[in-house]
Amino acid sequence: MTAADPSLLSNPRSDRVRQVAALGRRAAREKQGRFLVEGPQSVRELLSHAVTAAEVLYLTRAAADRHNAVLDAAAHAGVVVHECTEQVLTAMADTEHPQGMVAVARQVDVPLEQALDALGQSGFAVVLTHVRDPGNAGTVIRGADAFGASAVLLSDASVDLYNPKVVRATAGSLFHLPICVGTPAAQLLAACSARGIRLLAADGDGTTLLPEADLSGPHAWVMGNEAWGLQPEILAGCDEVVAIPIERAESLNLAMAATVCLHESGRLRQA
Amino acid sequence: MTAADPSLLSNPRSDRVRQVAALGRRAAREKQGRFLVEGPQSVRELLSHAVTAAEVLYLTRAAADRHNAVLDAAAHAGVVVHECTEQVLTAMADTEHPQGMVAVARQVDVPLEQALDALGQSGFAVVLTHVRDPGNAGTVIRGADAFGASAVLLSDASVDLYNPKVVRATAGSLFHLPICVGTPAAQLLAACSARGIRLLAADGDGTTLLPEADLSGPHAWVMGNEAWGLQPEILAGCDEVVAIPIERAESLNLAMAATVCLHESGRLRQA
Repeated sequence: MTAADPSLLSNPRSDRVRQVAALGRRAAREKQGRFLVEGPQSVRELLSHAVTAAEVLYLTRAAADRHNAVLDAAAHAGVVVHECTEQVLTAMADTEHPQGMVAVARQVDVPLEQALDALGQSGFAVVLTHVRDPGNAGTVIRGADAFGASAVLLSDASVDLYNPKVVRATAGSLFHLPICVGTPAAQLLAACSARGIRLLAADGDGTTLLPEADLSGPHAWVMGNEAWGLQPEILAGCDEVVAIPIERAESLNLAMAATVCLHESGRLRQA
Repeated sequence: MTAADPSLLSNPRSDRVRQVAALGRRAAREKQGRFLVEGPQSVRELLSHAVTAAEVLYLTRAAADRHNAVLDAAAHAGVVVHECTEQVLTAMADTEHPQGMVAVARQVDVPLEQALDALGQSGFAVVLTHVRDPGNAGTVIRGADAFGASAVLLSDASVDLYNPKVVRATAGSLFHLPICVGTPAAQLLAACSARGIRLLAADGDGTTLLPEADLSGPHAWVMGNEAWGLQPEILAGCDEVVAIPIERAESLNLAMAATVCLHESGRLRQA
């Protein structure tokens, strides 16, 4: 623990612990402009891919002994490290099992124009409108990252990117590609169209089947709410409504549909 | 409520209610050879695709008024219908919001040989070994159904197919295609091999990339545990270890990987 503060944090009711724990709530995250990064995997990705956003790392003695590389990376980057008791860590974390480690980071989203710049001449993105389930949003971000999307655009009516459950579900992917948050869906679509980014609504009732969709140029997959799909005005703002050909099931869930669409875009780019 | 029992079930502590509620536990399901089908969507799929397995339908007055078609289908099929109070329904159901309807059905899995027969000369299947999360298992079954798989083989060390959370996550797909349960993984693989069904292990460390995998003949995707993947002895029993090409993310989660693999098999069959 070379980089650790010599004073062990042991009071789970201290002001500092309360301030960190408050980041479990959206209002506090917005006010502080910060969020929680929990568990060794996410912290490792933070330090590897967005180290300038990392501010403080809290960890137990056991976690410090177990994850030397994380501690070294934090020390190397000048991140403040505090050793704390198991009780303090539990009080700070949103997760039931943060595996002995919680970091506080500045929010990493980028302005819309910067996210769109990342698409260049042939990139693709995913637009999430009214996606409410943290696990779904995180899984889609993970898929966008895995299949080589250039950016993720999360509309203002969607789940908060910095919700600890979203952060966890991205498995670190939120540190890998530009993500824009807080813009109304209509404005996201208009900005894409203005740049010649083709808007493909993913919808089981679409008239274009996925194998026939034109994915050659810059494009964005537009995904709707888990239960009620895409709103009519969103559908109307898209260039094409695309359905994944299915044989029998009622429909695919949001994460499955996004996985298939993003994989298809990535597959054609690699081919 | 033409087909309803005239006597309203109103005692949530009655023997009947206890017996139905017991189906939330695996031991009781195995002893009774029955399981719970909760909510209008799942009940509708049960009555449409596996009506001979349906035994009793319990529903509230409000649900009966709201879902006439379900009630008609039950009456037409000779399924016993009991009206019950909201409290009785809540006591019976595993779900927090069963939407006023719970059916008791006989278990619908089929013998291994029957599941394998369904593959014929060009079908494909998915083998789940040690998959423990109900949501993942249900999602994979839903994907297998959507993309036209012929069968699902669930090893004995996996989550119980009749766990209410699995049933719910399949969104009715468990009534659409033959599913075999309870056989050890090694035996499942041997039975596939004996029939010339090519075994493709899905694994991020695979040496064959998905676009190069031979999916022309009958084949089965073999998926491992959420956390630790496929066991060495399972990998050794497969013909090929296939990786999905990914750009950046650490790895895909189980449901995403299965979705991509099953979609690819379905896509090539349709092309």
